[in-house]
Amino acid sequence: MPLKNFKVLNNINDYKDLHKLSKEEINTLASELREYIIEVTSKNGGHIGPSLGVVELTIALLMAFDPEIDRIVWDIGHQAYAYKILTGRKDEFPTLRQYKGISGFLKRSESKYDHFGAGHSSTSISAALGMRVGKDLLKKEGYTVAVIGDGAMTAGEAFEALNNAGWLDPSKFIVILNDNQMSISPNVGALYTYFNKIITNQVFQKPRQALKEILDKIFGKQGTKLARKLEEYIKGLFAPGVIFEELGFTYVGTIDGHNLFDLEKTLENVKQMRGPILIHVITQKGKGYKPAEENPTPFHGMSPFDKITGEPKKSSVNPSWSKVFGKALCELAEKDETIVAITPAMREGSGLLEFSQRFPDRFFDVGIAEQHAATFAGGLAVEGLKPVASFYSTFLQRAYDQVIHDIALQKLPVVFAIDRAGLVGADGPTHHGVFDISFLRAIPEIIISAPKDAQELRDLLYTALNSGKPFAIRYPRGEAVGDIKEGFKEIPIGSWEVLEEGKDIAFLAVGRYVQKALEVRRILKTKGIDITVVNARFIRPIDKELLKHILNTHQFIITGEDGSLNGGFGSAIAEFIMDNDYENRLIRFGIPDKFIEHGSVNLLEKDLGLLPEQIAENIYKKIFNKDFVFMKKA
Amino acid sequence: MPLKNFKVLNNINDYKDLHKLSKEEINTLASELREYIIEVTSKNGGHIGPSLGVVELTIALLMAFDPEIDRIVWDIGHQAYAYKILTGRKDEFPTLRQYKGISGFLKRSESKYDHFGAGHSSTSISAALGMRVGKDLLKKEGYTVAVIGDGAMTAGEAFEALNNAGWLDPSKFIVILNDNQMSISPNVGALYTYFNKIITNQVFQKPRQALKEILDKIFGKQGTKLARKLEEYIKGLFAPGVIFEELGFTYVGTIDGHNLFDLEKTLENVKQMRGPILIHVITQKGKGYKPAEENPTPFHGMSPFDKITGEPKKSSVNPSWSKVFGKALCELAEKDETIVAITPAMREGSGLLEFSQRFPDRFFDVGIAEQHAATFAGGLAVEGLKPVASFYSTFLQRAYDQVIHDIALQKLPVVFAIDRAGLVGADGPTHHGVFDISFLRAIPEIIISAPKDAQELRDLLYTALNSGKPFAIRYPRGEAVGDIKEGFKEIPIGSWEVLEEGKDIAFLAVGRYVQKALEVRRILKTKGIDITVVNARFIRPIDKELLKHILNTHQFIITGEDGSLNGGFGSAIAEFIMDNDYENRLIRFGIPDKFIEHGSVNLLEKDLGLLPEQIAENIYKKIFNKDFVFMKKA
Repeated sequence: MPLKNFKVLNNINDYKDLHKLSKEEINTLASELREYIIEVTSKNGGHIGPSLGVVELTIALLMAFDPEIDRIVWDIGHQAYAYKILTGRKDEFPTLRQYKGISGFLKRSESKYDHFGAGHSSTSISAALGMRVGKDLLKKEGYTVAVIGDGAMTAGEAFEALNNAGWLDPSKFIVILNDNQMSISPNVGALYTYFNKIITNQVFQKPRQALKEILDKIFGKQGTKLARKLEEYIKGLFAPGVIFEELGFTYVGTIDGHNLFDLEKTLENVKQMRGPILIHVITQKGKGYKPAEENPTPFHGMSPFDKITGEPKKSSVNPSWSKVFGKALCELAEKDETIVAITPAMREGSGLLEFSQRFPDRFFDVGIAEQHAATFAGGLAVEGLKPVASFYSTFLQRAYDQVIHDIALQKLPVVFAIDRAGLVGADGPTHHGVFDISFLRAIPEIIISAPKDAQELRDLLYTALNSGKPFAIRYPRGEAVGDIKEGFKEIPIGSWEVLEEGKDIAFLAVGRYVQKALEVRRILKTKGIDITVVNARFIRPIDKELLKHILNTHQFIITGEDGSLNGGFGSAIAEFIMDNDYENRLIRFGIPDKFIEHGSVNLLEKDLGLLPEQIAENIYKKIFNKDFVFMKKA
Repeated sequence: MPLKNFKVLNNINDYKDLHKLSKEEINTLASELREYIIEVTSKNGGHIGPSLGVVELTIALLMAFDPEIDRIVWDIGHQAYAYKILTGRKDEFPTLRQYKGISGFLKRSESKYDHFGAGHSSTSISAALGMRVGKDLLKKEGYTVAVIGDGAMTAGEAFEALNNAGWLDPSKFIVILNDNQMSISPNVGALYTYFNKIITNQVFQKPRQALKEILDKIFGKQGTKLARKLEEYIKGLFAPGVIFEELGFTYVGTIDGHNLFDLEKTLENVKQMRGPILIHVITQKGKGYKPAEENPTPFHGMSPFDKITGEPKKSSVNPSWSKVFGKALCELAEKDETIVAITPAMREGSGLLEFSQRFPDRFFDVGIAEQHAATFAGGLAVEGLKPVASFYSTFLQRAYDQVIHDIALQKLPVVFAIDRAGLVGADGPTHHGVFDISFLRAIPEIIISAPKDAQELRDLLYTALNSGKPFAIRYPRGEAVGDIKEGFKEIPIGSWEVLEEGKDIAFLAVGRYVQKALEVRRILKTKGIDITVVNARFIRPIDKELLKHILNTHQFIITGEDGSLNGGFGSAIAEFIMDNDYENRLIRFGIPDKFIEHGSVNLLEKDLGLLPEQIAENIYKKIFNKDFVFMKKA
């Protein structure tokens, strides 16, 4: 994709040229950056809303600071498109989120200007504080800046970091609260109300600053105890930002995040102040692109869309797994008033919008707060409710201890609906949900399952809600397969299902790999090989009786799973074979012991040899020690 | 242990009889509870300091609330000894923390009065909020109370829960901040400073309450906007608890936590107030027992001690693994100024006291904040420091996502010193560090190791610091084995060590299991069987060359590890055998797929068949299909 005829953007190399530009040119640059971001994301999809919201902030940061010397840590990193363009990735930007292209988040291996990798939320203050302390210890020059959204601020880690920063009291440490009154879904939480109140009350900010200065003049920096107390009261009197002030930060706000020159001036001013600073910047998500301004939630992260209308380009044929889940949950909740749903800020993504509208009293968006989400669900279960806690697989990592300590150990009947399990595609290594089987399998008591198709997801959800046990159901990103029938069927816990009977070779497939296994069967049939296909819908407990039968009647066992080979389902089968002295041969397919880059799932799987024809060829070669290249029909 | 001649305690059944007692009798009861707690913990060890600090609070809670109807959720649960005694466990209390005795924490399966299990910190507000919402949805009567320490309040999950509670705004929801100015080590963090300031400023609390009431009278509940603004200012003017107020709580404090009747009155008063309440109670850790009052840190959790002097009874022969680690780190830090240490509130437990004293600028106790601790370490590594982050294995579960997302994915050279790996004994299921091998093995890039003895811990630490890679070293609780030499030796990453050469049977042992393997070898020698013993000091990468050699020269492979059999080290060997088409037999020893109760490690391992003689017998039986009972020499 050639760069458009951008008057200013085409004529600068990177952020170092910003100072050469006139005010007017800088304003033009802001518009051009927006246009470029809209252009590329409309083709590639991406986090358009967050990135459009911080165009001015990005320019201001790059004028006030030098990322060669200073550190700029963007929380999550999905708002850093303008930053990427202005730090040497202007020409590569059209490859955003594409296979072998630049990442949609920040990545240390991509650029020296990406000071800390990101993808998950709320790590920026912690990382920046580490860098700040590091710089001080090593007597390196430069400032350290973290940029964090109001949504990300609700996560515990951000608070832990503020608490530690206030205690360590470093100078040249600036946290920018990028407040757009949204995380992904509309924001929730007391902190959100609090920020709102600050914005309403900002009129009092100026007199407060003035008073502070007068007091400083009267009493000096070494003022009396009385002076300090007086200052405290006055700080309290003009209240904005008092939470941050109490935690040891100097609060500066609120600042209009789209007034580039005010922003820059503020950044220059705070450089001189001692101790940690928090600047409260107000921005609008999707700023400058009407469809995104009007519909911030879908435009948070968007698949390719029509630039003019803002409509998504591709309409899916089948509903997504998330939608199937959400719809099933609504149907079940209609008949059972004790069913409640919990999400850590992923209402839309998890398919819970309809539930939240139909059962608002039983729907709990707790904000970006995975730890709390899990324990809170445990509390609900204690009182006799049936909580369904929906997590993206990758974010469940944040609640790992709570799943162990608050749910499994206490045998509380919480259902974990694990969305985005397996490879997720363009979001890449921070978001692939490939560890959950391994990390959950280590935890006793919890049932782990994966549906082969949409109807089985419904049935597993029904089974889970009736089980009275901690129960995890993992399903992938994207379109679900198969049709939906009416009603629900209970599936015996731990039961597998033989889908095709063959001989000698049995393919035990988990979730999305069931379809692959059926395809592998079709391919191997062309070589006269007849394989058994088993839907291993329970990862724990495994179907021991069926497995023994399979082991006794087949020499070769294949496992396939959309998850890590280290300690995953295939590993469970290896354990069983060895523990029970079977002599079968095992061939395991899944994610190898490395981080997987971003790109379409199809391309990533091709790289990993995980497409059905590759799996078939691989099995053939391993078993018959001969090559066999399967040609797909055109 | 028979109950002493307690005048009041012996004559009541449980908390229901509290109301029958006179004020004087209640005061006597408080003394008797203290005496009983000191008596039992001096024999069994336990969390004496925290429990002595809340004797009055416990009585007041049980007078103001009825745990049959109301919910009392103690954070961590280690302060609940008086609660246990007064809720039906008076006679069992002498079995505290002993094998098959009552737990040192809270446990739903132990008593219906333990409303939520605990052991780890900072979950109480989340759990109580879930229960509160549950009660409201199901229209159940009763109050919900969470009791949380000031140390536990620094953890992110507590903040996430406050934020959600302020938003949901439930009534009959009371959080008691039990502020003893200590977590385990002296408290740190901006929040601590803030609490301190509140305590100093408490004189202003009363006028503030009075003013609030006057305003309510003047303007009424439906007052004008002006009135509400005025109230805000006045709240700001008399500042205590403003953080909690801003998050939507009504702040009540500070209250003397040892004035039982004031406490009870306050609890009764707040019952009538609407919205969530936070009561700030000031207590003294170890209250009423001089040695504990004077030395709160060691008396937080104590091994058996002399009741009169407060001295620990048993002095260890060898230094603990933690001490060996701490000493080695000091030696290395002396020569390398870039070494820094991070602990989430476990300075003493992790052996870092000396480091903190000798290198205060390079020591970071970040408070109970595991997530932040890991990411903060990542930030330090970015700037070129060599961070050693010390975690108890069980608490590393709290930082799982950060280890993946902030360290391993970014290949940052953070050394994780994982203490208390494996079974820990009396602290039981919440504290056994048995999952780390499985959950770390799923994460790419991170090296996982375990030393066989004290010197190897030193050498692994040295190796880790020189590796430039994410590097985990796990070691158990308790006394280290082996002598310490001078200096350090680099160990080739991924190299195992053959300690004894045998034939046919090879024992691949991890960490503490190396000693067991040597003992198993000695035992099997008595049957004329000569086994090979391998110190598998690297769990990842495994020593593939040596392993292949072992597999080619031995028929039977034994693995032993102080961790879960699901996805652990033995599982890695099973994977390797199957993936590479070896035909060896494998026998795996480790922690089975269930939660392990509390008790001495020896008794627990006996139950699990993991004592060396049991392992030897088991191997013999599996291989020769014959029984063999090994009798230990008396």
